[in-house]
Amino acid sequence: MKILDEIHKEDLDSMIVLDPKNIAYLSGFNPSSFSVLVIKDEPLLLTSKMEFEDAYLNTTIPVEEYKSLSEIKDYITGKVGIERNITLGAYKKLKISSIFEVKITDAVERLRRIKSNQEVQNICKAIDIAESAIKDVDFNSKKTENEIAAQIEYNMRIRGSKKASFDTIVASGKRSSLPHADISNKPLNTPVMIDWGAIYNNYCSDTTRTIIETEKQEEIFEIVLDAQKKAIDVIKPGIKASYVDKVARNVIKEYGYEDNFLHSTGHGVGLEVHESPSLSKSEVIKLEKNMVVTIEPGIYLKNEFGIRIEDMVLIKNNAKVLNKIKKKI
Amino acid sequence: MKILDEIHKEDLDSMIVLDPKNIAYLSGFNPSSFSVLVIKDEPLLLTSKMEFEDAYLNTTIPVEEYKSLSEIKDYITGKVGIERNITLGAYKKLKISSIFEVKITDAVERLRRIKSNQEVQNICKAIDIAESAIKDVDFNSKKTENEIAAQIEYNMRIRGSKKASFDTIVASGKRSSLPHADISNKPLNTPVMIDWGAIYNNYCSDTTRTIIETEKQEEIFEIVLDAQKKAIDVIKPGIKASYVDKVARNVIKEYGYEDNFLHSTGHGVGLEVHESPSLSKSEVIKLEKNMVVTIEPGIYLKNEFGIRIEDMVLIKNNAKVLNKIKKKI
Repeated sequence: MKILDEIHKEDLDSMIVLDPKNIAYLSGFNPSSFSVLVIKDEPLLLTSKMEFEDAYLNTTIPVEEYKSLSEIKDYITGKVGIERNITLGAYKKLKISSIFEVKITDAVERLRRIKSNQEVQNICKAIDIAESAIKDVDFNSKKTENEIAAQIEYNMRIRGSKKASFDTIVASGKRSSLPHADISNKPLNTPVMIDWGAIYNNYCSDTTRTIIETEKQEEIFEIVLDAQKKAIDVIKPGIKASYVDKVARNVIKEYGYEDNFLHSTGHGVGLEVHESPSLSKSEVIKLEKNMVVTIEPGIYLKNEFGIRIEDMVLIKNNAKVLNKIKKKI
Repeated sequence: MKILDEIHKEDLDSMIVLDPKNIAYLSGFNPSSFSVLVIKDEPLLLTSKMEFEDAYLNTTIPVEEYKSLSEIKDYITGKVGIERNITLGAYKKLKISSIFEVKITDAVERLRRIKSNQEVQNICKAIDIAESAIKDVDFNSKKTENEIAAQIEYNMRIRGSKKASFDTIVASGKRSSLPHADISNKPLNTPVMIDWGAIYNNYCSDTTRTIIETEKQEEIFEIVLDAQKKAIDVIKPGIKASYVDKVARNVIKEYGYEDNFLHSTGHGVGLEVHESPSLSKSEVIKLEKNMVVTIEPGIYLKNEFGIRIEDMVLIKNNAKVLNKIKKKI
């Protein structure tokens, strides 16, 4: 197993994996909860009685039943890796800190950052589903934001997405100035920001389009688009993820809207809609081939409106934009 | 604030709240992430720049911007409570363990277990939406499990549920023998197990119905119904949550299906679809007035089918069933 090599690099002998997405990534089995994957020379998946059959059918790793986290210590050896997002409660239940040398490791995240061809295909299919789902939507102004979102999610589901990859955002008029606006039952206003994504074979898509109308909106749209284009153009393996953020931010700064770009420029996408790396000021990671990231600059004018444009790119020698839908819809 | 009294009972002077649902419960603001609520004599909500406006509009607690978890230590004093589900990564970033006396506390969970009238109203409205959403569904056998689920979720959304409270389960035929079956694109078979829920004002519902056809299914259905009824009948304030589980399990045991009841009898429902208490063997909590819990025994016959019946009850002097939909649909 690749993960075994990865933890050996950190001088770890075994690793306890609790994060359901990490378990899915490493084992092929998508647990609802309670499952534990023990990585060691002979890896083992431990599940509740309830999940045993489902696990057994979906992984080649040996599966055993377990009842409590306190049993896990019998299965590990040597220097033990644990995930950064393990809860303090679970960590205490494991009762391993006094017996073993324990270290937080990002080994699984490091592997997950680099996508295989199969993973890229799943992501592309998720993008296809999401883009196809929005094409049939009637952005007739009599509909509410919520109705539009309901229609998009229904369309994605019927096309093979088991759920939306995150809560669909349909924020129009003044509400578009809130980057993560909650959905409302207000009729559509202008502009209409739609941030939506599908899931295919557990892999996510994440895209934003903003439907504009007025000249002022058009002006801001062009700035955001320019920032996105320049950010995409600098992407290549070896540059810092933070540099891409800087490039997008500098374009927006030139036009005087630096304080209106309220979030980072992008993030990795895979089994989770937000995963490593972050394309932000403070990210220390360098971009590598076969990462998939979003590029999503935005300008938010308080009490007026907001514009965000978000596409997903696959990093090869340059950035290859995976979205096919036009920037203006 | 009630929470201040609650942490004082544990001799804590302040508490760091990171869980978005706990922040929503205590502040009224539903953060997407990154927000931190500091509970102390003068509580404070810290948010990212991006969430500041949204937070400011939705809470009466003073809001300030913050940039990194390492700043939080400047806002706390004395003996500090943290949540059981804080991640080890976040806990280390806080860098508080060497400066303050730190203790895991379930103070917020204790408050959340007991529902106010307003919370019960929200839950009842979520149940109404979910039950109404299923009434229009045509369980015509030409439809796939996925299409049925898509229709239920669309109907819930149009009726005011911003999303499903969890991944809708529509598992039919043999697949119903997996308690947490993933959705499939197979046409409906018999029986059809539907486990679905809505969200209203952030409060969840959670209900299961199984549509049966054959005599064997009817026989198992009656056993499960008997277990559910007897479990509901024993509920009153002061009894152990684990006793309710025992009662349901004993009924199923009498009929010889003990090994086919693969999960616990129920769980609390509120801002989260699964919250404290758990109606399981190992739960130490006693039931109290104004808890809302599910009662959901099930029998799962491997390679044959499964039956589960799940209703939500409000605990007063007895259990008051909140669902209105019939057991047989």
